[in-house]
Amino acid sequence: MSRRSNYDRAVKIRAAVLEQFGEPLVVQELELAGPRAGEVLVRLTACGVCHTDMYTASGADPSGYAPTVLGHEGAGIVEAIGEGVRSLVPGDHVVTLFSPQCRECIHCLSPRTNLCLAIREQQNKGYLPDGTTRLSRDGEPIRHFMGTSTFSEYTVMPEIALAKVDSEASLEAACLFACGLSTGLGAAMFTAQVQSGSTCVVFGAGLVGLGAVAGCRLQEAERIISVDLSDERLALARRQGATDCWRADGQVVERVLDQTGGLGADYTFEATGLVAVMREAVESARMGWGLCTIAGVAGKGETLEVVPRLLITGRRICGSSFGGVKGRDQVPELVQRYLGGEIDVAPLISHRMGLEDVNRAFELMHAQDGIRSVLALGS
Amino acid sequence: MSRRSNYDRAVKIRAAVLEQFGEPLVVQELELAGPRAGEVLVRLTACGVCHTDMYTASGADPSGYAPTVLGHEGAGIVEAIGEGVRSLVPGDHVVTLFSPQCRECIHCLSPRTNLCLAIREQQNKGYLPDGTTRLSRDGEPIRHFMGTSTFSEYTVMPEIALAKVDSEASLEAACLFACGLSTGLGAAMFTAQVQSGSTCVVFGAGLVGLGAVAGCRLQEAERIISVDLSDERLALARRQGATDCWRADGQVVERVLDQTGGLGADYTFEATGLVAVMREAVESARMGWGLCTIAGVAGKGETLEVVPRLLITGRRICGSSFGGVKGRDQVPELVQRYLGGEIDVAPLISHRMGLEDVNRAFELMHAQDGIRSVLALGS
Repeated sequence: MSRRSNYDRAVKIRAAVLEQFGEPLVVQELELAGPRAGEVLVRLTACGVCHTDMYTASGADPSGYAPTVLGHEGAGIVEAIGEGVRSLVPGDHVVTLFSPQCRECIHCLSPRTNLCLAIREQQNKGYLPDGTTRLSRDGEPIRHFMGTSTFSEYTVMPEIALAKVDSEASLEAACLFACGLSTGLGAAMFTAQVQSGSTCVVFGAGLVGLGAVAGCRLQEAERIISVDLSDERLALARRQGATDCWRADGQVVERVLDQTGGLGADYTFEATGLVAVMREAVESARMGWGLCTIAGVAGKGETLEVVPRLLITGRRICGSSFGGVKGRDQVPELVQRYLGGEIDVAPLISHRMGLEDVNRAFELMHAQDGIRSVLALGS
Repeated sequence: MSRRSNYDRAVKIRAAVLEQFGEPLVVQELELAGPRAGEVLVRLTACGVCHTDMYTASGADPSGYAPTVLGHEGAGIVEAIGEGVRSLVPGDHVVTLFSPQCRECIHCLSPRTNLCLAIREQQNKGYLPDGTTRLSRDGEPIRHFMGTSTFSEYTVMPEIALAKVDSEASLEAACLFACGLSTGLGAAMFTAQVQSGSTCVVFGAGLVGLGAVAGCRLQEAERIISVDLSDERLALARRQGATDCWRADGQVVERVLDQTGGLGADYTFEATGLVAVMREAVESARMGWGLCTIAGVAGKGETLEVVPRLLITGRRICGSSFGGVKGRDQVPELVQRYLGGEIDVAPLISHRMGLEDVNRAFELMHAQDGIRSVLALGS
C-alpha cells in the first residue's frame, strides 16, 4: 500500500467548475481526496470538449446540477490506485469512460449491450460508487460529472471506468476515444455491425458523424454518403472515407431513394441530435432490412415521428450510446487500430488550448468552428 | 398440357365483389379465365375474413380500388396449372400468399427479409404478373386484390404465391396461416427471433396477437404477458401460452417496468394497429436490448412518436409484414407444427359461414365478436 500513502490526504488541483447554469465555467483550485477502494487517481493530460459538457453548462439538461467539474472526454496517466485495484498500476495510460464496464452485471455479461448497470445510479447523481465525492472546496463536497470530471488536472475514478491503452498512443489523440470518436466508430462497428459491401448514409459530420464514416469504412462499406451543412466538414468526411459528400438540402431522402433503385440505404446514421434529421435517417433506410442508428442526443421533450408503414416494410430503428462500445475491452482495441494507421485522428483535432481557455472551446463549438477542441491539462 | 385444356376458356365462378367503398360486398357470378404461364387455378375451400379486407371495403385505404374481389386468407386445392409450373400439380393442397416468394429476387435470396420484389408492382395495381386480370364480368376485366381474391370459389394465382401444405392438414385450419396466424407466429419466431427464457409482452389478442403469443411460447419464452381489453380474448391468449393476462388500462408500461426491475421486457409486440399502443409497446421494451416489433397496421397518416432517449438506451424498433415468413418455405413448416400439435388453431376459428354471409363476417369483426370468421367455399 505504500504507493498509495502520498494520496491518503487531499491534493490541490485546478479544475473548471460549472458554478451557475448559463454562465462561463470558473477555473479554480479545489481539493481532491485520494482514491478509496476500487478507485484510481489519474493525472489527466488531455480532454476533448464535447457537446454534452456545453449542454449541461447551458442548464438545458434537467438532470444537470451545479456546482460540478465538467468534462468527460479525458485521457491521462495513473498516478495512484486504491485498495483492491488489480487491473491498473501507476504509470498506465488510460482513457476515461463515462460508460463503465464492470464485467459482472447482467448487461456486461451480455453481448447485446454496453450499458453497464454497476454504478449507474450513483454516477447519475454525481457521486462515486460509494455515494460520496472526492472533490471538495473549503470542506464542502462538490459533485462529479458523468463519473469523470475531466476538465481538471487530476481526477479520481472507479477502476471499472478506465480503459488501459497502449502507451505508444498520443494521449491527445486517445482522449477522443473517450466519447465522440468511439461513439461514431462504434455506432457503425458494434451497434449497426455494417456488413461489407453496404450502402451507408451518415447524417452530420461532427466528431460522431466522422467517426461513423470511419467505422463504415473499417466495416468495408461500398458506398458511404456523408451529409452535412458545411463544406469544410464534408471535406473532412471524405478524408475519413466518405465516397459521396452531400450538402444537407432537405432533399436527401429523395436523393437516397433515387440512387438506390427506390429502396434506400442499408444503414443510416444520425449524428446531429435533431429529430427532423432523425426522421430523414429513418426514411432513407432501405425497405426490407435498412437499419437506422440514432447516435445524436435529442433535446428534452422532443420526439421522433415514425410512419409505421416504414417499419412494416422492413426498416428498423435503434440507438447507440457510446457506440455500443464495451469500454475497457474495446477502447484499447480502437486505439490499437489508430496506432495501426486505420483511424486518422489528427484532422479531428481542430483547436488546442489550456484548461484556462475552456470557455473559448465552448464558444468555438457554439460557432461550429472546427470539430474538436482538446484541452492540454497539467504540465 | 392435356390437364390444362379444360381451363383454356373462362369458367363461371361465384365471388364476393366490392362494388362501392362503404357498401356491402355483392356475391355474384363472374368469369375466371384459365391459368396462363406460371399461374395456377385453385379451387378454394376456406377463407378467413381479415381486417385488411374490411379496411379496403371501407374505402379508408387510399390505394384501394373497386370493383374487385376481396379476400386473401385462403386455402384450397390445385385444379389446374399453367405452362411452366413445376412446383405444383393438380390435387396439391395450397395456402394463398399475398406475400409471394419467387426465390430469385435480391430479397428472396437474403435471409434478412421476406418481402419478395418479383411481382409487387403489378400486384399492388390489381394485376397478375403479366399485367392483366383473369377475372371479368360481361367481358370487362375486374382487378384482383392482394394477388389473391379468395372470397371466391376459384382463383388464379402465380405459382410463386402458393404454399404447398401437407394434405393431412384441414384446409379450414390451414387458411389462417395465409395471413393473421402466420403474421403473429412469425413476428415472434422470424422477425424478433425471441430468445429462450425471455420476457415478452404482446399488445392485442386478436389473431395476430394470439399468434405472437403462440410464437413466443414456441420460442420458449419464460414469461408471456398478453394485454387486451377483452377478458374473452385474454382467456384465449392463456390457451395459446400467455403466462400473464392483463386488461389494457393505460398503466401497462408502468406495470411492465415495475415487474422487471425497472428495465422492461426483452420483447414487445404490437398487434392492434393503434399508434398509441405502438408507443406503449416501445416504452415497455427493455433498456439495453428490448426489441419492439410492430405487427399492426396503423391508419393512413398516423405516426408513432418515439422518445429518442429510449433508443439511445438500447431499445430497438422493427416491423413485421406477414411475420417475416418466407411463404413457400415456411408456411408449410408452420402447418407441420400445427399437425404436430404445437399450434392450437381450433379455438381461433370463432364463426363458420358460407360465401353468401361474408358481410355478416364483417359485422362480427366490427363488433369485435370472436377472433376469426372462416368462409366455407365451394362444395
